[in-house]
Amino acid sequence: MYTQSDLKKLVNKAILNLSYNEEAEKLNDPVKYILSIGGKRLRPVLALMACNLFSDHIDEAIVPATGLEVFHNFTLVHDDIMDHAPVRRNLPTVHSKWNLNQAVLSGDVMAFIANECFLQTPPQFLLKVFKVFNKAAIEVCVGQQLDIDFEKSAIVSDEEYMRMIELKTAALMAASAKIGSILGGADDKDSEILYEYGKNLGLAFQIQDDLLDIYGDIKVFGKIVGGDIISNKKTIMLVKALELASPDQLRQLHEQFALKDFDPESKVKKVTEIYDQLNIRNLSENLANDYINAAFSLLGKVNVPVDRKTELVNIGNSLIGRDN
Amino acid sequence: MYTQSDLKKLVNKAILNLSYNEEAEKLNDPVKYILSIGGKRLRPVLALMACNLFSDHIDEAIVPATGLEVFHNFTLVHDDIMDHAPVRRNLPTVHSKWNLNQAVLSGDVMAFIANECFLQTPPQFLLKVFKVFNKAAIEVCVGQQLDIDFEKSAIVSDEEYMRMIELKTAALMAASAKIGSILGGADDKDSEILYEYGKNLGLAFQIQDDLLDIYGDIKVFGKIVGGDIISNKKTIMLVKALELASPDQLRQLHEQFALKDFDPESKVKKVTEIYDQLNIRNLSENLANDYINAAFSLLGKVNVPVDRKTELVNIGNSLIGRDN
Repeated sequence: MYTQSDLKKLVNKAILNLSYNEEAEKLNDPVKYILSIGGKRLRPVLALMACNLFSDHIDEAIVPATGLEVFHNFTLVHDDIMDHAPVRRNLPTVHSKWNLNQAVLSGDVMAFIANECFLQTPPQFLLKVFKVFNKAAIEVCVGQQLDIDFEKSAIVSDEEYMRMIELKTAALMAASAKIGSILGGADDKDSEILYEYGKNLGLAFQIQDDLLDIYGDIKVFGKIVGGDIISNKKTIMLVKALELASPDQLRQLHEQFALKDFDPESKVKKVTEIYDQLNIRNLSENLANDYINAAFSLLGKVNVPVDRKTELVNIGNSLIGRDN
Repeated sequence: MYTQSDLKKLVNKAILNLSYNEEAEKLNDPVKYILSIGGKRLRPVLALMACNLFSDHIDEAIVPATGLEVFHNFTLVHDDIMDHAPVRRNLPTVHSKWNLNQAVLSGDVMAFIANECFLQTPPQFLLKVFKVFNKAAIEVCVGQQLDIDFEKSAIVSDEEYMRMIELKTAALMAASAKIGSILGGADDKDSEILYEYGKNLGLAFQIQDDLLDIYGDIKVFGKIVGGDIISNKKTIMLVKALELASPDQLRQLHEQFALKDFDPESKVKKVTEIYDQLNIRNLSENLANDYINAAFSLLGKVNVPVDRKTELVNIGNSLIGRDN
């Protein structure tokens, strides 16, 4: 079986081998930049693990899996525009390194470079794989819209928030696992299970990502600690806190989020104090754990020998920071 | 044979029947808006004419042809951002009616709605059609990049300009004609001819579009007359004028294009006067005519009875304002 590290290497190699229309150099520079600054290659790795779950031959899955990474990076470039984010992975975002127009256009071309990858799917799987991808791509846009809408809503329920991250983050991870399984020759029942596995993994991953904003290490995470609090971004912690707060705590939270001129550090400290009083960190970690456990229980139902499932268990554990 | 007007109706109906993920209403409002404000539906109409050239049955070509229109409108939404254009077809552009983020995101989702349309291509043609589309989609991005690059270049040669519009405008029209021909059952030789036919049509169309900026009627065209002159946009007229101008005319042109504070009407008048001295209108009209004639000569080589070609001749004539 291929390990996460084997697969990441294969994906990185495939990214370097992507072919570009080189007639307008400037178009591709930001594409190569964003694709070179790393990340875990989670989606293609997941796809290849799901493929490897059913088949020892993953070669033909590598390029379509890489399409998932290209698509994901396309959404990062455009999301960073929408969020006015200056930094990603400790480096300038595309629109800050170049400019808005370049970020729009170089982002756009990535959508079609992703298509190009999917068009290299073995013909017998092409339609099925492309449909799964494209449905997820639309869901990611819907999720991003809900995320934007939520910025302006005073109250967002737990369910609304979870549905938003299901669309914005989990749908693509679900699609990745499903696409991999299809390419590995899984039947419809198993590839539906893989879809649900990937979705649960994605939900856990996003909750963990929310937690890392406060409890993560800036050197590892590449973002300001508490950046979500500073920018009033809805996270699972904030949604839960608004749900559980006493009237007094609610007043304090609203006060912090209404500040126009403020010391960022003090705002992060005060909001985190309320989170701590409400035990939000534990509640959120437990929720992430629940989703990972649900993913594992789904994996248990897949009709292959248990030793083939090791890597998909390992990646689940690593996503929520459990020791493997 | 279907006429241009028949086909436009079929495309408009298919646009109304597009299916949307309705979970985030706001995402689709700009999509429906831009798709509703009309235009000639040139690309899908061309595709359906090319299909009809080879087959009496065009039903299965309608949805993929509509994908071409959705893609084209996606590029309009994002190009209008990049050009800071306030108005398109006499109505506010998406980013001015909504805002930048909405225009980026609603534009993005259109790329995947277009994919959705192509995925409905009859399976035997799916890979072929999608590849032709996707190659053109990337070329359109490359063309847009060159267009942006040219804004900053003092001198752009005739060849460079023609290559830019070949990518930005003609590639998609070429792909449209080719895709239609494939869906109509044309062989490779004929569908290559249709590609070249569409490319020549596209080049003529863009030259005509450049001409209309000055010599068109605002009521028909929906833009300020001379908008390209006011914004120093490279057009075939400007490129030719810079090539043919005497030292004194060149000085006057550079003077006009260097103005920061100016009366738009007087700038348009002065630049147009130089164009007139250099006979630029005639030269450009002749060039558009040459491309249309080249398209017709290609059409002559297609191996179908001549009476099937009438509509493809009519649309060529109408694009450069010839009476049919």
